[in-house]
Amino acid sequence: MPRLFTQQDSIQPFVLLIFGATGDLAKRKLFPALYNLYRDNFLNKEFAVIGVGRTEMEISQFRLFIKESISEFGRLPLQEGAEWERFAARFDYIAFDITEPDAYTSLLAVVEERERKTNLMGNRMFYLAISPQLFGTVSNSLERSGLTNTAGWKRLVVEKPFGHDYASAKMLNEEIKCSFTEEEIYRIDHYLGKEMVQNIQVIRFANFMFEPLWNNRYIDNIQITASETVGVEDRASYYDCTGALLDMVQNHMLQMVMMVCMEPPGRLNTEAIRDEKVKVMHALRRYNEEEVDRHIVRGQYTAGEGGQGVVCAYREEPNVNPASITETFVAARLFIDNFRWAGVPIYIRTGKRMQKKVTEIVIQFKALPNRLYFNKNDDVAPNLLIFRINPREGITLLLNAKKQGTDSQVVPIGMEYCNDCGDASPEAYESLLHDAILGDPAFFTRWDEVSLAWKFIDPIRRTWDKNSRAPEEYPAGTWGPAESNEMILNDGRRWWTGEDIIKNRKTIKAVERPKY
Amino acid sequence: MPRLFTQQDSIQPFVLLIFGATGDLAKRKLFPALYNLYRDNFLNKEFAVIGVGRTEMEISQFRLFIKESISEFGRLPLQEGAEWERFAARFDYIAFDITEPDAYTSLLAVVEERERKTNLMGNRMFYLAISPQLFGTVSNSLERSGLTNTAGWKRLVVEKPFGHDYASAKMLNEEIKCSFTEEEIYRIDHYLGKEMVQNIQVIRFANFMFEPLWNNRYIDNIQITASETVGVEDRASYYDCTGALLDMVQNHMLQMVMMVCMEPPGRLNTEAIRDEKVKVMHALRRYNEEEVDRHIVRGQYTAGEGGQGVVCAYREEPNVNPASITETFVAARLFIDNFRWAGVPIYIRTGKRMQKKVTEIVIQFKALPNRLYFNKNDDVAPNLLIFRINPREGITLLLNAKKQGTDSQVVPIGMEYCNDCGDASPEAYESLLHDAILGDPAFFTRWDEVSLAWKFIDPIRRTWDKNSRAPEEYPAGTWGPAESNEMILNDGRRWWTGEDIIKNRKTIKAVERPKY
Repeated sequence: MPRLFTQQDSIQPFVLLIFGATGDLAKRKLFPALYNLYRDNFLNKEFAVIGVGRTEMEISQFRLFIKESISEFGRLPLQEGAEWERFAARFDYIAFDITEPDAYTSLLAVVEERERKTNLMGNRMFYLAISPQLFGTVSNSLERSGLTNTAGWKRLVVEKPFGHDYASAKMLNEEIKCSFTEEEIYRIDHYLGKEMVQNIQVIRFANFMFEPLWNNRYIDNIQITASETVGVEDRASYYDCTGALLDMVQNHMLQMVMMVCMEPPGRLNTEAIRDEKVKVMHALRRYNEEEVDRHIVRGQYTAGEGGQGVVCAYREEPNVNPASITETFVAARLFIDNFRWAGVPIYIRTGKRMQKKVTEIVIQFKALPNRLYFNKNDDVAPNLLIFRINPREGITLLLNAKKQGTDSQVVPIGMEYCNDCGDASPEAYESLLHDAILGDPAFFTRWDEVSLAWKFIDPIRRTWDKNSRAPEEYPAGTWGPAESNEMILNDGRRWWTGEDIIKNRKTIKAVERPKY
Repeated sequence: MPRLFTQQDSIQPFVLLIFGATGDLAKRKLFPALYNLYRDNFLNKEFAVIGVGRTEMEISQFRLFIKESISEFGRLPLQEGAEWERFAARFDYIAFDITEPDAYTSLLAVVEERERKTNLMGNRMFYLAISPQLFGTVSNSLERSGLTNTAGWKRLVVEKPFGHDYASAKMLNEEIKCSFTEEEIYRIDHYLGKEMVQNIQVIRFANFMFEPLWNNRYIDNIQITASETVGVEDRASYYDCTGALLDMVQNHMLQMVMMVCMEPPGRLNTEAIRDEKVKVMHALRRYNEEEVDRHIVRGQYTAGEGGQGVVCAYREEPNVNPASITETFVAARLFIDNFRWAGVPIYIRTGKRMQKKVTEIVIQFKALPNRLYFNKNDDVAPNLLIFRINPREGITLLLNAKKQGTDSQVVPIGMEYCNDCGDASPEAYESLLHDAILGDPAFFTRWDEVSLAWKFIDPIRRTWDKNSRAPEEYPAGTWGPAESNEMILNDGRRWWTGEDIIKNRKTIKAVERPKY
């Protein structure tokens, strides 16, 4: 590092085994990502993919399934004919019951034959796109069958959720550690595959002007929003047992907090970065029951205006318990108790059925001294640096300047950089698959990050489970319950939303504060 | 302050007397500016303009002259008919020899009659758009004739040059001070009327994120460029006795240095700002003879490619001495010896017949620590903040980000704000006339600023006059003589040009520096 995404030479031949090859993730993300990497010449010529699934199907059927998945979800258009045949020929499929240890013998035979035929050197990547309950069973069987006993490297890629609390995550981790070392385990948090999330460390550390400002002397607060307009869609039965706290906060939101708040590492390599991220998690203030109520808001959507007309309440969604108290929204005020961030609140919010689909990080710099120069009435907008992760990847910097044609009336101006206004950026899964194949776990999560995230989350979950109060209600199509706004307004602050800032920049003001 | 440009209420009725009313400045700048202010409702309904010139002409001729000037040089289209007549009726003209004191009696009669007829309250602004040699004579006669003895306010507006060295400037100042107090004297530096020059103090002081960075800990150097593509045009005989040092550096360039480098004033009012500007001039290092040669480059253009084909050398221009050693280009390395700026070079350059017409200020932040993260080969571009004064008013911020689709390859990105992409900004003279009428001298130069600028300039001029060496040559259509580049390259730096930076941002690098 730093190195090019396109460095094909260092990619060795490999076999990728996808468990759950006929499932939703494989279909929507993995096959399209593989195809894009192949088309962009990021994959070595020698590779094979072996799909594993429950459903019996002919190899021709499986390849048709892949073709359809790429046509429907791919970033690049599918090339037909001989070109397609060359790609499709790399795919095998084998159906068996993955809870049945003996069945793995036949899988080993298929893998070994492929490897022999195409000189694949025995590098094996096992991708578990299956229910997390099966992670342990499968990794155990992989070892017992001899599949992990290979002359090349072996790697295990696991999807979230990694456990449902600290205890279960620890147990799961111990199970898979019987067969794979920490260095061989690639825990996916697909937010870390996003272009602008990866850009955080570059923008922080490749610009001399930001580092001196990146602390509690100059930054007033940090806001991280990950909002969706959709409801639970076809994940209702899973989601109703999980909720936004486990589905979004434990992983994606805390990962973004770590990326924004970590100290500059000694070197910019994988382990040094992860060490710094872990230090953020150690400094993240943990909340007791009373504090959970004060610093964290949970919400659940009621019926309201969705994008296309009126949508039903969460409790009326199919496969959701009509008395469910699962949260579909979380807002929280976090603190990192170290020298850099002491006193700087980090506001996070995430939810379903919100007003806009947006993922962004807002760095709000301190306000000008009140009564100074232009800020006589505390009405000059603060400087904001916004990482726009989605949509319209890029960064926005909100500054103030003289209004044209006036002597010194101050107006906010937006300076913008767009990362994907030319070509679409690679999908998160392209970037992550690429890194895993190359053997770079920088944008995967290490066990200590995951375990500390659970240790932060567990007391919150326990507090909520203990009192049977329902989450605060918010109508679908809004920015969440009133309590979320109140929490931040009571601090003399407000939620910012990048798009609105740019549109309404003539009327941007910070909130009213007491005057001294 | 701060206040709106549009605050018409505080503008009192007045008579504006323009000396040199048939001259070039009046025609190109003053009449169009007056018309724009009038059309935009910035002028009180009660005002009158009395032109004074040598040439005898009928009032109808004079008004036609004004009409043509507005048609040709105005920002707003001229409205014909009754609308025009109402505006034109405010103008009178009187021809007399302004070196003849007795003639002013008739001027007084004209002014008093106008004032009586239209209730103008006796506020009189005397605008000297004439040769500076006459400033003393005219101001003296204004007093002796009783013109300055008025019940209202009186103000004197004088154009540059204000003297040709410290001694002559001092003498001139003493002459006009017999008739006007310092508060009544409005010395024009039209660069201070430019939108983006006025914006410097707003951008510096209305953005919390800049002030902590605005010093020698974070800024590597500052560059100010004011380049023209034209030659001497019809000003040859004046220019050949003046040169770029007096024509541009003593006033405009040093004014920009003051605006960028001043300390934050106690209050943002006129005198507090000027006090801080004067402190910059006190801290500006003055050069002895040996230092002049080391820190200052002068050039003169030879024949070369101008905008439209080959153009002649300076010495071949009509009305230029064929053996002239007048400089048409100056580059200098300045130092401000105070706590804020110690060790930060301020590079300035200005010239005629250069490659592009551009006025801009580049704040170059320090480079990333060498060998840190992305900067292993010292090849990451520095952060630049660029005030684009002309053309395309605005600011540009050059940052670094991750190249799209790579893991962490760093590329420079340009964030831009355009100040005049919608409506054209008011002309500098509109802004300055407006301020003078309102009685706000913030963007005019105070005597101590002017005198200190001369004290900096005089030793340079003397050094050059003493040795009869010709200036360095540079072909028309280039960025000046090689010595200008060498001066900055020897410091391990390079000249930046905003437009080029944006166009070539993929290949921006700082210059090679010794590695440690």
